[in-house]
Amino acid sequence: MKISIILAHPDPASLNHAIARTAEAGLRANGHDVILHDLYAERFDPILNASEISETVPVPPEIERYGAEISSADGIVIVHPNWWGQPPAILKGWIDRVLRPGVAYRFLDEDTGEGIPIGLLKAKAAVIFNTANTPSERERNVFGDPLQQIWGNCIFELCGIKEFHREIFTVVVTSSPEQRREWLDHVREIMDQYFPRRL
Amino acid sequence: MKISIILAHPDPASLNHAIARTAEAGLRANGHDVILHDLYAERFDPILNASEISETVPVPPEIERYGAEISSADGIVIVHPNWWGQPPAILKGWIDRVLRPGVAYRFLDEDTGEGIPIGLLKAKAAVIFNTANTPSERERNVFGDPLQQIWGNCIFELCGIKEFHREIFTVVVTSSPEQRREWLDHVREIMDQYFPRRL
Repeated sequence: MKISIILAHPDPASLNHAIARTAEAGLRANGHDVILHDLYAERFDPILNASEISETVPVPPEIERYGAEISSADGIVIVHPNWWGQPPAILKGWIDRVLRPGVAYRFLDEDTGEGIPIGLLKAKAAVIFNTANTPSERERNVFGDPLQQIWGNCIFELCGIKEFHREIFTVVVTSSPEQRREWLDHVREIMDQYFPRRL
Repeated sequence: MKISIILAHPDPASLNHAIARTAEAGLRANGHDVILHDLYAERFDPILNASEISETVPVPPEIERYGAEISSADGIVIVHPNWWGQPPAILKGWIDRVLRPGVAYRFLDEDTGEGIPIGLLKAKAAVIFNTANTPSERERNVFGDPLQQIWGNCIFELCGIKEFHREIFTVVVTSSPEQRREWLDHVREIMDQYFPRRL
């Protein structure tokens, strides 16, 4: 399988980076082709300009490449911290620019844009790893955990991906080295579960 | 009153720009001091780097200025399209960088960062105007309307702003000029309601 990992955290020493590297190692050990995009290291430009909005316009070559890659991925893994119930801006920009009409979804011909789009991504599963400093209960009860809707309903379901798993590691700021090691072991288990070794 | 308007849409001919200008005109007519930030026109850099995360570090002067302004605002108006149940990346970056610890919220001294922060913004009300191409019922029932939680619970309540109003104009793509005119009249009414003329 061809798996894309998208990582959005500014600190290479972060738990997010460790999660992405652990996922990558597990996927490679299972025999998959893996591309890991560290959006900060790649200096991804998150600004969607007006000239790029229409489905039919040409887009910059790097956006073409990101789009071609996500279109052909058999699996998608996304790693980011929960910042204000949302992804960091750099990842929001990846969503805005890469998950374009014609790449990630399209409208039916008779539709004028307000209707129900058809998902175009062919990945069999998408896995999200989030880190947070809010206890899970407070995230659900006080904040409503918008990332669950964002990734599950607004993005992956709309883009045609049926299987979706989200794992939240929290509270990071007060976590022990043992806790972090357990979390990374769990990352490996989830990779084995969703993207097992081919027989 | 001192009111900050934050606008995030790439097209100066958009309904979003018309909403922001209508809000600005109404607020000025009511005698308020208004600053309108068009984040695209200002080429706001949305990337939060690792060096800016800690509360105690110095930040670039433009981020200081945005922070000082939002700290002293008596009212906040935010205008943006619903892109994937979230704001555009440029506005997400404004949230990430400007609503800093020490500016928008702070933790109690005995807290190590995982606890419940105290809101620092003093604005008496915040108003969000969203545009969308999804019918309201589908937004609520299929997508779960994450922007309501994001702005209401995750951001404004956490930052100490008690009064919050969100208005959604949809479906924009198929709307008539008359419909848009009605929407803009309603923007004016909402400004009069939340930020009336001083007596």
